[in-house]
Amino acid sequence: MTEALKTGATIGILGGGQLGRMLAVAAARLGFRTHIFEPGANPPAGDVAHALTTAGYDDVDALTAFAKSVDIVTFEFENIPTDALDVIENITLIRPNREALRTSQDRLVEKQFLESLGLTVAPFADIANAADLEAAMTTIGAPSILKTRRFGYDGKGQSRLRSADDAAGALADMAGNPAVLEGFVNFTAEVSVIAARSPSGEVACFDPGENVHRDGILHTTTVPARLSAAQRMDAVLLAAKILNALDYVGVLGVELFVTPQGFIVNEIAPRVHNSGHWTQNGCAVDQFEQHIRAVAGWPLGDGSRYADVVMENLIGDDMDRVPELAKQRDTALHLYGKADVKPGRKMGHVNIVKRPS
Amino acid sequence: MTEALKTGATIGILGGGQLGRMLAVAAARLGFRTHIFEPGANPPAGDVAHALTTAGYDDVDALTAFAKSVDIVTFEFENIPTDALDVIENITLIRPNREALRTSQDRLVEKQFLESLGLTVAPFADIANAADLEAAMTTIGAPSILKTRRFGYDGKGQSRLRSADDAAGALADMAGNPAVLEGFVNFTAEVSVIAARSPSGEVACFDPGENVHRDGILHTTTVPARLSAAQRMDAVLLAAKILNALDYVGVLGVELFVTPQGFIVNEIAPRVHNSGHWTQNGCAVDQFEQHIRAVAGWPLGDGSRYADVVMENLIGDDMDRVPELAKQRDTALHLYGKADVKPGRKMGHVNIVKRPS
Repeated sequence: MTEALKTGATIGILGGGQLGRMLAVAAARLGFRTHIFEPGANPPAGDVAHALTTAGYDDVDALTAFAKSVDIVTFEFENIPTDALDVIENITLIRPNREALRTSQDRLVEKQFLESLGLTVAPFADIANAADLEAAMTTIGAPSILKTRRFGYDGKGQSRLRSADDAAGALADMAGNPAVLEGFVNFTAEVSVIAARSPSGEVACFDPGENVHRDGILHTTTVPARLSAAQRMDAVLLAAKILNALDYVGVLGVELFVTPQGFIVNEIAPRVHNSGHWTQNGCAVDQFEQHIRAVAGWPLGDGSRYADVVMENLIGDDMDRVPELAKQRDTALHLYGKADVKPGRKMGHVNIVKRPS
Repeated sequence: MTEALKTGATIGILGGGQLGRMLAVAAARLGFRTHIFEPGANPPAGDVAHALTTAGYDDVDALTAFAKSVDIVTFEFENIPTDALDVIENITLIRPNREALRTSQDRLVEKQFLESLGLTVAPFADIANAADLEAAMTTIGAPSILKTRRFGYDGKGQSRLRSADDAAGALADMAGNPAVLEGFVNFTAEVSVIAARSPSGEVACFDPGENVHRDGILHTTTVPARLSAAQRMDAVLLAAKILNALDYVGVLGVELFVTPQGFIVNEIAPRVHNSGHWTQNGCAVDQFEQHIRAVAGWPLGDGSRYADVVMENLIGDDMDRVPELAKQRDTALHLYGKADVKPGRKMGHVNIVKRPS
C-alpha cells in the first residue's frame, strides 16, 4: 500500500485491550472502521469497533478471514506470535513492520540494536543458564534485575537481585526462559518520548512526559517533564534515530532514564504507550490518532501541547475513586469498560488538565 | 432509576447519526456500552457501538427487544414517533423526558412554552391555512419565515417571505402541514448555550459559542462568543430556567439571537447540538460526555473552557479539503465515516484550537 487509506476503509487491530479500544476510537474519528482480533472474550476494544473476531492466534482460518476483511493491520501489543503475523502478511500489510516487532519482542535483541545506534543502555548480559548468571554477577553485579527476554510487561517476568545470594532464586523465577541481566541504573527521573513516523519518513514527537511507577506499573505521567531545552532536543533526536533505523511506521514509545551522564534507554515499545495517554487532553491530535494517521499513510497531525497534563492510571480498586474523580475540576476520565476489577489490572486513567494561568 | 448507572451498563441511543456516534464514544470513555437503534443501513454510530438494531420506529418487537437489552434510553434527535417512545417507556426510562420532547417537537408549543417562562421569542402566529396566513401578514408582515411546526432541521421545511406576494408560494411549500409564521428578527449575532442538567437538578453550561450559518446550515461556531460578562450571565440563567421548567435531564442546546434589546430565543434542541462540537477540544468534559453523565445519573463534569476554539462543519464536498486540513496546525478532525458524500450533508467537522499565547 503506497496510497493513503480513504475514509471508510477498515483498519484491523491485533489485540482488544484498552490500547486497541482507544485506537479504534481514534480511527473512527478519522472516518475509518476497525476490526478487532482478540482471543479473549468481551475485549474492551470490541465495544467501539465495527467488527470483532474472537479467535486464537493459532487459528489460521480466522486470521485469514480477518486479514481479508481489512485494508491494513496494526497491533496494540508486541508479543504477537510470529506464525500469526506470517499468515496476515501473506494477505495484507502490517504496520509497524515485522523488523520493529522482532527487535522489541526480545530484550537482548533490542539492547543490541540500541547499542548499534550508538545509544546508551544499562549494562546487560545474556543469561541462558546458571553459569551465564554467575559470570554476569562478576561484571554487572548487584543490585541488578533479571528479566525474561520475551513476553514481559508491567514488571512481570522480572526479579531483582539485591546481592549475589539472590541469583539462584531469580534464575528459578525465569522458569528456564532465556533472560537478560540488567545492571541497576542510578537515575534521577524516567521520561518517555512518544514518537511517530509516517511512511514518507516524516517524524513527530510529543513533548516528553515524566513517569512515576508503583509496584512496577506506571502510576503517573506528568507533562511537561522537568528537562532542559537541550535534554528535550536530545530525547527527540534519539527517538527519531530509532524510528529511522527501523524504517518505522506508527507510534513508538521510548522510555529513558535521566542520569547526570545523559539518557539511558530503558526500553522501546512498538505501539501506543501508557505514558502517552495524556495527549488525549493536551493536544489537538493524540497518540492514538497519530498512530492511525501514520498507519493509514495520512500526514502526521499537530501533536504540540496546548495544556499541561498529569495522567494517573486507575489500577484495580482505584475504580472505587471514580465517583469522586467524576466530580473533580479539570479532570477527564477514561475508563476501559472492563467487567472485572483485579489487583494490578489497568481499569482506566484520568487526565488532569492544568489550564493556562 | 434513581441510582447512578455503573460502569459496564448499557445505554440505548435512538438514532445512529453523527450525534449518536459521538455520544457512543463518550459513553465508552466512561466505561458504558451502547446499543444503537436506527432504521437506516450502516449508521455512523454503529461503527462505535457495542450493539446495533436496524429496524423501523414502527417495529414494536424490535423496540421491545432493544428496550429490554439496555439500562436506560436516550436519543440523538427530537423527531422520534410518539408510539415508539410509548413502547420503550413501558420497559425502561427515557432521558431527557417526554415533556421535553413534546415541547421541542412542535415549534408552536415550544414558542408558547418559552413565552410562558417570560422569555422573548420572535413574533409568531399559528398557521393552519391561507386565512391564518393572511391575518398573520397584517400583524407580523414581511420579511418573515414560514416554518413547519414539526420535523424541520437544517433549514428544511422553511420558506422565506420577502413580501406578501410570497405568501401563497410559501404556504404551498408547507404541503398542508401545520406551520408557524415567524417575524424576522434584526439580530447582531446568533449564539448558543449548551446546557446540562442532572437528575438531582445540578445545572452546568458550556461557554456560549457564536454561530455563523450558510444556506441554512451551521457553518462555524467560535468560542468565546463576543458577549459582555452580563450577557454571558443572562444566557446561562435563561438556559437554566428552561432546563428547570422541563425538569430536564441531559444536554440541551439553546439558540439565541443577540439584539440591542436583549436575547431572543430562536429555538431549543433537547439533545447534544452541532454548535457544541467545539467542546471536544476545549474542555476536559465535552457535551457528549456531559449528556451521558446526566443520563447515567453521574455528577456533571467540568466543562469549563481551557482553550479558544473555532468549529467548522465539513459539508458535502468540503470532504475534498480533508487532506489539507489533516496537515494544518492546531487542527482536530472529526469525521463521521459516512459512505456517500451529498450536497448539504454533514460529513464531519474540524475544531481549530487556539493555544494560549
